[in-house]
Amino acid sequence: MAQGTFHGVFPYLVSPIDAGGRVKDAVLTRLCEDLIAAGVHGLTPLGSTGEFAYLTWAQRRRIVEVVVAAAKGRVPVIAGVASTTIADAQMQAREMQGIGCDGVLAILEAYFPVPDDGVQDYFRAIADAVTLPVVLYTNPNFQRSDLSLPVIDRLSRVDNIVAIKDASSNTGRLLSILNRVEGRIDVFAASAHIPAAVMLIGGKGWMAGPACVAPRQSVALYEICKAGDWAKAMALQREMWKLNEAFARHNLAAAIKGGLEMQGYDVGAPLAPQPPLSAQGREDVRAALTRIGAL
Amino acid sequence: MAQGTFHGVFPYLVSPIDAGGRVKDAVLTRLCEDLIAAGVHGLTPLGSTGEFAYLTWAQRRRIVEVVVAAAKGRVPVIAGVASTTIADAQMQAREMQGIGCDGVLAILEAYFPVPDDGVQDYFRAIADAVTLPVVLYTNPNFQRSDLSLPVIDRLSRVDNIVAIKDASSNTGRLLSILNRVEGRIDVFAASAHIPAAVMLIGGKGWMAGPACVAPRQSVALYEICKAGDWAKAMALQREMWKLNEAFARHNLAAAIKGGLEMQGYDVGAPLAPQPPLSAQGREDVRAALTRIGAL
Amino acid sequence: MAQGTFHGVFPYLVSPIDAGGRVKDAVLTRLCEDLIAAGVHGLTPLGSTGEFAYLTWAQRRRIVEVVVAAAKGRVPVIAGVASTTIADAQMQAREMQGIGCDGVLAILEAYFPVPDDGVQDYFRAIADAVTLPVVLYTNPNFQRSDLSLPVIDRLSRVDNIVAIKDASSNTGRLLSILNRVEGRIDVFAASAHIPAAVMLIGGKGWMAGPACVAPRQSVALYEICKAGDWAKAMALQREMWKLNEAFARHNLAAAIKGGLEMQGYDVGAPLAPQPPLSAQGREDVRAALTRIGAL
Amino acid sequence: MAQGTFHGVFPYLVSPIDAGGRVKDAVLTRLCEDLIAAGVHGLTPLGSTGEFAYLTWAQRRRIVEVVVAAAKGRVPVIAGVASTTIADAQMQAREMQGIGCDGVLAILEAYFPVPDDGVQDYFRAIADAVTLPVVLYTNPNFQRSDLSLPVIDRLSRVDNIVAIKDASSNTGRLLSILNRVEGRIDVFAASAHIPAAVMLIGGKGWMAGPACVAPRQSVALYEICKAGDWAKAMALQREMWKLNEAFARHNLAAAIKGGLEMQGYDVGAPLAPQPPLSAQGREDVRAALTRIGAL
Repeated sequence: MAQGTFHGVFPYLVSPIDAGGRVKDAVLTRLCEDLIAAGVHGLTPLGSTGEFAYLTWAQRRRIVEVVVAAAKGRVPVIAGVASTTIADAQMQAREMQGIGCDGVLAILEAYFPVPDDGVQDYFRAIADAVTLPVVLYTNPNFQRSDLSLPVIDRLSRVDNIVAIKDASSNTGRLLSILNRVEGRIDVFAASAHIPAAVMLIGGKGWMAGPACVAPRQSVALYEICKAGDWAKAMALQREMWKLNEAFARHNLAAAIKGGLEMQGYDVGAPLAPQPPLSAQGREDVRAALTRIGAL
Repeated sequence: MAQGTFHGVFPYLVSPIDAGGRVKDAVLTRLCEDLIAAGVHGLTPLGSTGEFAYLTWAQRRRIVEVVVAAAKGRVPVIAGVASTTIADAQMQAREMQGIGCDGVLAILEAYFPVPDDGVQDYFRAIADAVTLPVVLYTNPNFQRSDLSLPVIDRLSRVDNIVAIKDASSNTGRLLSILNRVEGRIDVFAASAHIPAAVMLIGGKGWMAGPACVAPRQSVALYEICKAGDWAKAMALQREMWKLNEAFARHNLAAAIKGGLEMQGYDVGAPLAPQPPLSAQGREDVRAALTRIGAL
Repeated sequence: MAQGTFHGVFPYLVSPIDAGGRVKDAVLTRLCEDLIAAGVHGLTPLGSTGEFAYLTWAQRRRIVEVVVAAAKGRVPVIAGVASTTIADAQMQAREMQGIGCDGVLAILEAYFPVPDDGVQDYFRAIADAVTLPVVLYTNPNFQRSDLSLPVIDRLSRVDNIVAIKDASSNTGRLLSILNRVEGRIDVFAASAHIPAAVMLIGGKGWMAGPACVAPRQSVALYEICKAGDWAKAMALQREMWKLNEAFARHNLAAAIKGGLEMQGYDVGAPLAPQPPLSAQGREDVRAALTRIGAL
Repeated sequence: MAQGTFHGVFPYLVSPIDAGGRVKDAVLTRLCEDLIAAGVHGLTPLGSTGEFAYLTWAQRRRIVEVVVAAAKGRVPVIAGVASTTIADAQMQAREMQGIGCDGVLAILEAYFPVPDDGVQDYFRAIADAVTLPVVLYTNPNFQRSDLSLPVIDRLSRVDNIVAIKDASSNTGRLLSILNRVEGRIDVFAASAHIPAAVMLIGGKGWMAGPACVAPRQSVALYEICKAGDWAKAMALQREMWKLNEAFARHNLAAAIKGGLEMQGYDVGAPLAPQPPLSAQGREDVRAALTRIGAL
């Protein structure tokens, strides 16, 4: 209901954890600093790429503290809140507000399928628990629940729900959402969508893992799209798409962590039993990054 | 390998069949005539919307004879060839060439899963059976097989394979295909993609059911996209998308046949046991057609 | 409604087709003769294993003519009737009756999803078209439609619908069906179920591909189950299950055709583009057949 | 590798939580007491029915403390250990051992797909972290990972891995596992399998939610199966299956909690946003319980 709150490129941050389970503060801080210097419009810790589903609450909390401290208010920090229950999600959201986040990215985890009413209750309850702006998140590929169009419509009328990030690969669905919410909330793309195409149809930007390893190029693409120079946008987009393909082909967290390691960030591997980036994966990511001058 | 052969808007034709199982020649002829008058760039009988999976070979053959006769060479006719076996597909393709089609749309049906090699053999064999240009078709939503990127790459090097129509809803995959085939074949969208977005990323047009009930608007959208006026394109696209949504929500053939009935074409209902368009479906389709002036 | 009509072991016959597309009458006749000599209770041409989805109508018709002629009335022949439309299915069923079959196995093919009402109409229409007993078939693994419990309940009240063959791997569903139809129709297992377990819960036998290569062992298992000697049944069942596992691991038709080739039946490979049995598949099938003395 | 450790009926306990998020110790203690009095062979807190995926670690810990205290060593307590990471799973398992459990039920949660090696590492690491016997758990219906036969084979050779509970509905898979592990580990059924059928093929018992509301009947069925009186077993099994059907039709936790409420246990509803048992669900559960004298 308060669209216009956020816009631009929000890299999904990885979560660097050492062998003892501690957050690697220094490397995460440096990453945030460099991303801001590269011009990104905000930071999103604890998305899929941030392995939210693999971290304890203490680890999640620490990740966000470090990011907020690193951002120093220069760009908004939108932290992931993900749970299976309303009670736990509200607790997380309140804590994120207390830490100083600028928004929360609300994610519904589920073991048993959740009916539409339950999905709506969950997201509504998170919005009720905080005064921060809330971004809805949906990823039908990795989750057992999904936000239907009628539920999105109803949630778009809640005061502090300001945007939705759709991580399906169905770009037509984004246009359906845009038509349905009639400007009440903004729409952001994920790495499975073509950013330039989403900008064309009315998107406000994208929240995605690849922006973590290619921030300058992502921001450049955003600016060209904003300027309406679509031919130039597609020329750049075509080159950058190889990066998204590489990430789709391999484990998301492994790919971004692997790419950052190549760029000199000691972020480590995904948490076990997730495998580190394979040899083929390293080759694909290296080629994609080299092509666009990000390595 | 012979890209540039086809371009523009190709409506998927419905297959009007009477209670005795006979093709309704007159209504199909009139529909073709009106579509050509509306400016469509070609006609595609026997796609999903054309209920190819529900027709006997005799019915399929007759449908194509009527369409070729109606087209009188004014626009190309690309007829669907769909089978589970290479032998049957080759027979169909040769017959389509004999009838006078300008191309074939090659569809792989499968009961048991088919490995990549078998998929490649199937499409290659169809191309070998005719001198006509061949368009590859893939629809992972309704089919048990799919064309992988490596198979598409290899098939794009076959002389008379000229284009691919991807009926997934994954628009990013179209950009991956475009990047991979490097201009050797053209890419067409289906009704699950946003036509304007596909044109932006390099598509040559679309083959889709909705164009059957909104030919003038579809052609107008195509021309605006071709002219590069993307703001104007999106304004029209946004209005037209409601039509695609209505078709996605209801049985494809039922929706297009229902819409054509509203427009005065006595095409009948889909073949039993497929249900006719529901009351809600009729309402959705009527609203979508009315909105864009197609009713 | 006329339960008790069929019982025992019904091998799914393969469909031997030569390079020119002709049914290999002699090899099919010999296979039928040998199966009857081995004691099977009936023959079922044109099931999944019989590649019904890969044959033209002329080929299907010929397969059944050969099997009926070979059976000479010694055991019942239940032929597969499979289509996407009611009109075509009724035509097929009438032809099967004309050829002299003792029953039809009714299979619903679908491209678009079919609602419950349409599923019921389809099977009801087949029963209406013939005086023969009808066996319902459902295989959610390879088909887009399924028979729900309420639909099975309603169909069980139709006079000449006498049994159901469930090819899911969900054995609990068979008990649910048995409870629901209260004896109005019989239940047969498929190769994905453990035959002994299905006999224990009240099944009347099984219709399955493996019985085509292990008829004597299958009949022995059936007799032991009928006698209620469950310990002995399980000892045999455990050995025979390796055969079902081998068939589940590889393409069904390829596995049975491969096994028959090893036994000296020149049935050939599945129709292209289906691949023939792989080297690993031949090894698995050979080991499974050898273990139970079927090779 | 230490088969024979456990046998019989292990009810999956529900997790009664009050509005403030506290475990309802008294009602859980009474439930355990009554189940033991009814003759169950063990207790399994924190299975799917126990909503492990919806509880904080503090709640999970408390649930197990209460159950261990209630059991007083009369029957073994096998507590669920479920995580996405090895580190967290090992911590949980050690804590369960410290609390005094007799075994752990190891469950792998996953967000991104996990390859076979990672699955094996995860379960192996849990076994390494404790001296307790470990039961492997797999439920492909609700989880993104699954235990393949080769992985089960390798894990069956680990000293303190003693059994597997398969919650798929594919009963044939249980026989494949039994054949493959050759007695090295035991096999237990879940509510989706027919207990009598699993006992026939060599199972050692079952771990399931329905046993929580029908403990006496479940134990009776187990004893009859053990005695080899299969006709009597099936007569009872047929009646009891309606209960499993009711649970399959509705949310598992909601159904068991709803049934227990009818029996006078104030266990409350599942944690929000999961819906409580619907009116239809209450009717189905009531009918099923009444039929077998459990209400």
